[in-house]
Amino acid sequence: MKIPAKDLSRTSAGKVLQQLAENPFNLAAPGQLTAERIKKYQCRCHDFTLLYATQRVDEDTLAALQHLADEAQAIEQFMMMKKGAIMNHIDGCESENRQVLHTACRDVFRKNPTAPDAAIQARRELERLQTFLDELDNRRLTNQQGKTFTDMIQIGIGGSDLGPRALYHALAVFRNPKRNVHFIANVDPDDAATVLSNIDLSRTLVNVVSKSGTTLETLTNEELVRRAYFQAGLDPSHHFIAVTGKDSPMDNPEKYLRSFYMYNYIGGRYSSTSMVGGVMLGFALGYDNFIEIIKGAHDMDMAAEEKDIKKNIPLLMALLGVWNHNFLGCETLAILPYSRALIRFPAHIQQCDMESNGKALSRLGKPLDYQSGPIVWGKVGTNGQHAFYQLLHQGTTIVPMEFIGFRQNQHEQDIEIKGTTSQEKLLANLLAQSLALAVGRQSENLNRKFPGNRPNLVLMADRLTPRTMGGILALYEAKIVFQGFLWNINSFDQEGVQLGKHLANQLLDHFLRIRQDDNYRAGDSDNPGWALLEAADVTGLP
Amino acid sequence: MKIPAKDLSRTSAGKVLQQLAENPFNLAAPGQLTAERIKKYQCRCHDFTLLYATQRVDEDTLAALQHLADEAQAIEQFMMMKKGAIMNHIDGCESENRQVLHTACRDVFRKNPTAPDAAIQARRELERLQTFLDELDNRRLTNQQGKTFTDMIQIGIGGSDLGPRALYHALAVFRNPKRNVHFIANVDPDDAATVLSNIDLSRTLVNVVSKSGTTLETLTNEELVRRAYFQAGLDPSHHFIAVTGKDSPMDNPEKYLRSFYMYNYIGGRYSSTSMVGGVMLGFALGYDNFIEIIKGAHDMDMAAEEKDIKKNIPLLMALLGVWNHNFLGCETLAILPYSRALIRFPAHIQQCDMESNGKALSRLGKPLDYQSGPIVWGKVGTNGQHAFYQLLHQGTTIVPMEFIGFRQNQHEQDIEIKGTTSQEKLLANLLAQSLALAVGRQSENLNRKFPGNRPNLVLMADRLTPRTMGGILALYEAKIVFQGFLWNINSFDQEGVQLGKHLANQLLDHFLRIRQDDNYRAGDSDNPGWALLEAADVTGLP
Repeated sequence: MKIPAKDLSRTSAGKVLQQLAENPFNLAAPGQLTAERIKKYQCRCHDFTLLYATQRVDEDTLAALQHLADEAQAIEQFMMMKKGAIMNHIDGCESENRQVLHTACRDVFRKNPTAPDAAIQARRELERLQTFLDELDNRRLTNQQGKTFTDMIQIGIGGSDLGPRALYHALAVFRNPKRNVHFIANVDPDDAATVLSNIDLSRTLVNVVSKSGTTLETLTNEELVRRAYFQAGLDPSHHFIAVTGKDSPMDNPEKYLRSFYMYNYIGGRYSSTSMVGGVMLGFALGYDNFIEIIKGAHDMDMAAEEKDIKKNIPLLMALLGVWNHNFLGCETLAILPYSRALIRFPAHIQQCDMESNGKALSRLGKPLDYQSGPIVWGKVGTNGQHAFYQLLHQGTTIVPMEFIGFRQNQHEQDIEIKGTTSQEKLLANLLAQSLALAVGRQSENLNRKFPGNRPNLVLMADRLTPRTMGGILALYEAKIVFQGFLWNINSFDQEGVQLGKHLANQLLDHFLRIRQDDNYRAGDSDNPGWALLEAADVTGLP
Repeated sequence: MKIPAKDLSRTSAGKVLQQLAENPFNLAAPGQLTAERIKKYQCRCHDFTLLYATQRVDEDTLAALQHLADEAQAIEQFMMMKKGAIMNHIDGCESENRQVLHTACRDVFRKNPTAPDAAIQARRELERLQTFLDELDNRRLTNQQGKTFTDMIQIGIGGSDLGPRALYHALAVFRNPKRNVHFIANVDPDDAATVLSNIDLSRTLVNVVSKSGTTLETLTNEELVRRAYFQAGLDPSHHFIAVTGKDSPMDNPEKYLRSFYMYNYIGGRYSSTSMVGGVMLGFALGYDNFIEIIKGAHDMDMAAEEKDIKKNIPLLMALLGVWNHNFLGCETLAILPYSRALIRFPAHIQQCDMESNGKALSRLGKPLDYQSGPIVWGKVGTNGQHAFYQLLHQGTTIVPMEFIGFRQNQHEQDIEIKGTTSQEKLLANLLAQSLALAVGRQSENLNRKFPGNRPNLVLMADRLTPRTMGGILALYEAKIVFQGFLWNINSFDQEGVQLGKHLANQLLDHFLRIRQDDNYRAGDSDNPGWALLEAADVTGLP
């Protein structure tokens, strides 16, 4: 079964969009952003409404974008992915040739899941997780002194850190108040030291997450924490849990209290709803809340199968992104959630998007003749308004924006000041920004003039719950995957991180030799790596 | 005294740079990034070394950049700023017409400071701070039960939050272990609720920071916390401190235990070393450590007066930024500190840079015909390597990068694994990335090819201490100010945030009326603001 592959520059829709981009819809022209337009350009999926009247599109643009999705066979490819086709491939290049089945680990609620084998494996791990969590809840599993576990350290980096951490912060209000989670990711020794200085190791579980079982940062941090256990007179095998690939060096039940599996058909950056996030989130929020996350994600995975772009939020967002990026020439994308709980979410999407789509080679094995993934950044509102919105409104660069808002806040606490609640102030700010950026303002004082025409959209839901969080996560995953199909790139490998790793090992070898030989200098005196160590003056480190 | 003002496009250096940019230095060509080049392209100021061999510059480029700095009279303008000239001005536009004297609040160590009046005011506030902190240390100032204060909540947003918070996290290891600081910035009620749920209010000081005394988020959060005090039966006037402008609505000693002043010649985003950061940092780190921060900043302010760009790190970084942004066409800048403690630093610089230089009007009152401030983003290494470096290495967009590294870590804890320490692994990664991004790699497998030629630089210091932190802060402040001079823009206002505020108040008015009148609908049914509220389905909020 051959995956359809067509470069964006070879689509006929692409040529139409190129023409339309010469004179795109002008949001800032008087009377253009009408109430009618705002009512018209809405898209609903399950708990979510997308408001996109503030994009520079009209019916012609949307028709061309629909045509582009059809030509790229975006939905067909999405279905092939969900069924287990080999998506991780580039013609003529040695490739990983893997399936891409993160959607399967959410497809556990139906009799006939789309990818049955993967769904069975997902169910099995869920059952094992439930058993483990029950044992903790019922005090059948305790520390060696018979006390409950109150804390968990998650050791992982990249996909084993950013997504799970974003979800933990997003849903902290639903936490079991007797349980806390801490994260160690960076190889910076200060990262681990900060966590270890604030914790009772005897009542802590350590969840080590690495698919390959060979991630330098994770192994180093695991070893560092193991030594802290030995120093405290504690046996790590009663505290350490592994989440890893089958047959990885970490797949060693003797070293771990419990092991959970992640399968190689789930990429790290798409793995939050597998055991990579599941063990920690189950511990912190309870099993039922983790199932709610999965349920929300599964609902969105199903909604993303819709071919009509006006009814499919992730596909529509993918296409609007391509319009802004490839046709209107915007290099970046800002993700701006107006909810403090989503404080770590932009960092997760930054990874998922940039590692997936920061590629320059088409799946046909040829260099792209157009831009692929944008630079993704962002911050929670209203903090950003007091930080970088100046540039968004009046800078010389146009930044497309994705706002995320909720009708109700998570905590129950709120107060009225000057007649309105904080939540109302938050929403008023969110919607006012969307409007202001789109329509701008004329002024005789040129320094108070706002050119407007800054494309943005607003994603709304009632409240940030485990269910809606799962939905938002799956929405962005699907959006990123769709964009990969539209750009005709392989969104599922990450060869671009290899060279840095390779050179880091070479430099580490210098450090090792310096330690072994006081008089060591790199043999080849014109070696740039050694020169850099000398210039940075780090060769004399203790 | 007239500030020199010349648009970049009118400089003769600009024309030379335009020509040079047609064939810039090729880092990826074999044999170009030599050991000799690495040794040659270093710049030192005080505790810092800048390695910039991995920029796309040669002697011709550097000569043209020096010429540009001279033509723009960058150093002359910097000196005028430090002496108290009116910098906050645009010809032909109603302007704030203020002095810009953040450097003066560090210039407290010399008999003859550059701006004597402002330095006297800075010294006076420092003395008042010292007295206050002494009273806390000596238990002369306690809570109403005679107990010491253990916690502080800083309520502020934007400049009253990001810089101080970045410094607090950067230097947490130097903290008085009996004192903790918490931050409330966002108007999102969940922000305050999270802080208040984890704190003993009776032993907490609340530091409310707003220059105007009218910032919506800050007033709302102050009121929310005041109500929590009343509910707990505590008198806020024994707990609340104000940092505000003289004669602002918050300049009301009756409401506050203590008040400190910030002066209108210090902009919010440049105010971390004034009382805006001082009160909280003095409480947490002790007065002497705060003085060390100021000292480090002052040293850098003095180093930034050097006219030779090869001896002035902030000026050189400003010019390299302009080269990459305006002449090599890169829209963004990534700041990548390899130190966990700098976790909040990129967000602060993002604000300081984008709010200062996200402008489209020259100081001559004409729209710019070139790009001004870039989009600034970033994350601490090595986390970023597992997130977005894929795009940095192999994406279709070039991102200039600024790495920051330290020879020693902050905590004493470190371990050797496989013969090297974690700190060595961290540094090896940092330097390897710099090298890999510059030189790239050829490969027969096109998917494993790295084009290289990604301009980057490395800023090194021995260790992240209060002194070096002050230096890094002032370095970036000076860099941003220099870039403003080079782009000939007013880096010291922020008119671009006004329209959003204005529209938010209009929308809030709708919420207020809905509350007062169940049947309220906006009179003008074609009002886009009201239509947006309806489309977002928020008009029926409880």
